[in-house]
Amino acid sequence: MAKSPVEEHPVKAFGWAAKDSSGVLSPFNFSRRATGDEDVQFKVLYCGICHTDLHNVKNEWGFSQYPVVPGHEIVGVVTEVGKKVHKFKVGDKVGVGCLVGSCRSCGSCEKDLENYCPKLMMTYGSVYYDGTTTYGGYSDIMVSNEHFVVRIPDNLPLDATAPLLCAGITTYSPLKHFGLDKPGMHIGVVGLGGLGHVAVKFAKAFGAKVTVISTSPNKKDEALAHLGADSFLISNDQDQMQAAMGTLDGILDTVSAVHALYPLIGLLKCDGKLILLGVPDKPLDLPVFPLLAGRKIVAGSGIGGMKETQEMIDFAAKHNIRAEIEVIPVDYLNTAMERLAKNDVKYRFVIDVGNTMNHS
Amino acid sequence: MAKSPVEEHPVKAFGWAAKDSSGVLSPFNFSRRATGDEDVQFKVLYCGICHTDLHNVKNEWGFSQYPVVPGHEIVGVVTEVGKKVHKFKVGDKVGVGCLVGSCRSCGSCEKDLENYCPKLMMTYGSVYYDGTTTYGGYSDIMVSNEHFVVRIPDNLPLDATAPLLCAGITTYSPLKHFGLDKPGMHIGVVGLGGLGHVAVKFAKAFGAKVTVISTSPNKKDEALAHLGADSFLISNDQDQMQAAMGTLDGILDTVSAVHALYPLIGLLKCDGKLILLGVPDKPLDLPVFPLLAGRKIVAGSGIGGMKETQEMIDFAAKHNIRAEIEVIPVDYLNTAMERLAKNDVKYRFVIDVGNTMNHS
Repeated sequence: MAKSPVEEHPVKAFGWAAKDSSGVLSPFNFSRRATGDEDVQFKVLYCGICHTDLHNVKNEWGFSQYPVVPGHEIVGVVTEVGKKVHKFKVGDKVGVGCLVGSCRSCGSCEKDLENYCPKLMMTYGSVYYDGTTTYGGYSDIMVSNEHFVVRIPDNLPLDATAPLLCAGITTYSPLKHFGLDKPGMHIGVVGLGGLGHVAVKFAKAFGAKVTVISTSPNKKDEALAHLGADSFLISNDQDQMQAAMGTLDGILDTVSAVHALYPLIGLLKCDGKLILLGVPDKPLDLPVFPLLAGRKIVAGSGIGGMKETQEMIDFAAKHNIRAEIEVIPVDYLNTAMERLAKNDVKYRFVIDVGNTMNHS
Repeated sequence: MAKSPVEEHPVKAFGWAAKDSSGVLSPFNFSRRATGDEDVQFKVLYCGICHTDLHNVKNEWGFSQYPVVPGHEIVGVVTEVGKKVHKFKVGDKVGVGCLVGSCRSCGSCEKDLENYCPKLMMTYGSVYYDGTTTYGGYSDIMVSNEHFVVRIPDNLPLDATAPLLCAGITTYSPLKHFGLDKPGMHIGVVGLGGLGHVAVKFAKAFGAKVTVISTSPNKKDEALAHLGADSFLISNDQDQMQAAMGTLDGILDTVSAVHALYPLIGLLKCDGKLILLGVPDKPLDLPVFPLLAGRKIVAGSGIGGMKETQEMIDFAAKHNIRAEIEVIPVDYLNTAMERLAKNDVKYRFVIDVGNTMNHS
């Protein structure tokens, strides 16, 4: 019979977990594995709250295994390293994002695209190689193979960097891969939430002109004045949308709800690229003629590989990019989840794990 | 008041036209413009029948202006050239495809992508710069600005080359543009009709392994034995499709009917590309998660530019590529159209204009 979460490993750990599909989080005692030869153990200081966490604690995708300790935007300070670890030492500032494992030998892994490995191991909710469930960053301690650990440069604040480990790489990677990182390009960002606001910052840092496309007129001032976007389109204002037809080289579409692609495809230039980053729960309507008439592309992109995640963090350090956050104590977690469900956050909640997550 | 088709230009011409949305074609006297300084006039010898012609004669897209003289897969021999023409001389074998004009100054035109020019002029059914309607290749004589005329190399048979001017470039261009022309790639071709059978030939000539995906089991032998495909998948055989998941670098999807993209996206490898060449009359269902999980692309592509069309014809000459055709006399045209509507042709009808289109 399998051991209980608190007994299965030798290192005591404490976190907050959802115990059922109510999604309510509560204190949870469990354990972490002993630091293996290639492992990095670190004290968690901050963890971002991604919308994915909300889906998972409520089992909205149907594959959650309770208890769920969410969190894949995790930063902290190294407390122990295995004897074969060569990239990190005790005291280093590090982070772990969405992945803690992959096969390391398939075509995707060989191309540094662990995120597309068919055997990828998620930071929480996966069954790890030792048969135990992975638990995420809503917890006081983490351990990971060093391959899946990134270094956080000294000039980045840990709290506002945590969200870059998911939201950051999810937007940086497609800008790079699809050639949307060239100065002077005109990039659209659909949806100004956790992903969207970081997408604006990366696109601006690449030298693009950035247009935010949103259903919410009240986001305009902040998009322009605070986040640095160049223009703002209200997606249900047909005159505005019509006037902007054929002007964008690429669009990062961060919307997870079912929505119309037709007007977005219309905004693209010939050879323009619409990159979908959200996962609606139903298929979207794809109008074909507008694709043919301008050789346009609709593509998807999911997070990024480890090499590129480190590159993204280093780029963020160089260009002073950080997420806009609201830091919360752990006992505010359930309220934060309720607010997140209503998109009532600018733009990412980050749990102050280091100062507020104490054994009860 | 505008002059009638027979009077508006000085050069007498004769063709077959649809007079109304019955789509029935019948003899039609009209006229062609005098050969301008940059124009090439040629005697039409063969003209392919594209499915688009059927849509147009029946006004299925709603913008047909009768009479319609269809035909955009036109080959013949030059009979007269304007004084500024430098690429062609009388007696040359030439062809005209889907385009006879574009603005020549927009971003697309500057990149040799006249096919994506917002002001492109179709070979038939467009209003030309002089205000008259363009008439296509179901006629005895053509005239076109030399920029839109391609040279047919001597070793290509004119009849079996005609369809390359639409079906050929429509499949060649996306293979090149989307990087699906690399030897050793595994390419899928969905639908084995006028476009599909030529797609197989080009992909094979590029050195690809080619899998035909079709609803029709009875096309298997011909695809493998005659057209040179390497394998054949019956798209509604779930076991076959499941076994082929994740194996294709790219797919050319030639199907114009509404159909499911989900299984096709599943056939793609990570970073695979599904290129849509047909225009269903309703949006297709686009499943988003499979795109994100493999950074896959769904794109559209429409014909090709003039420079690439010449390149395609020269490539066909070098690799001995031709369309599979059934040559018909012009008085078989309405029967051919009925058969085409039932996909009863292997794989393209070509009208023997030179020998059978006589003034009645």
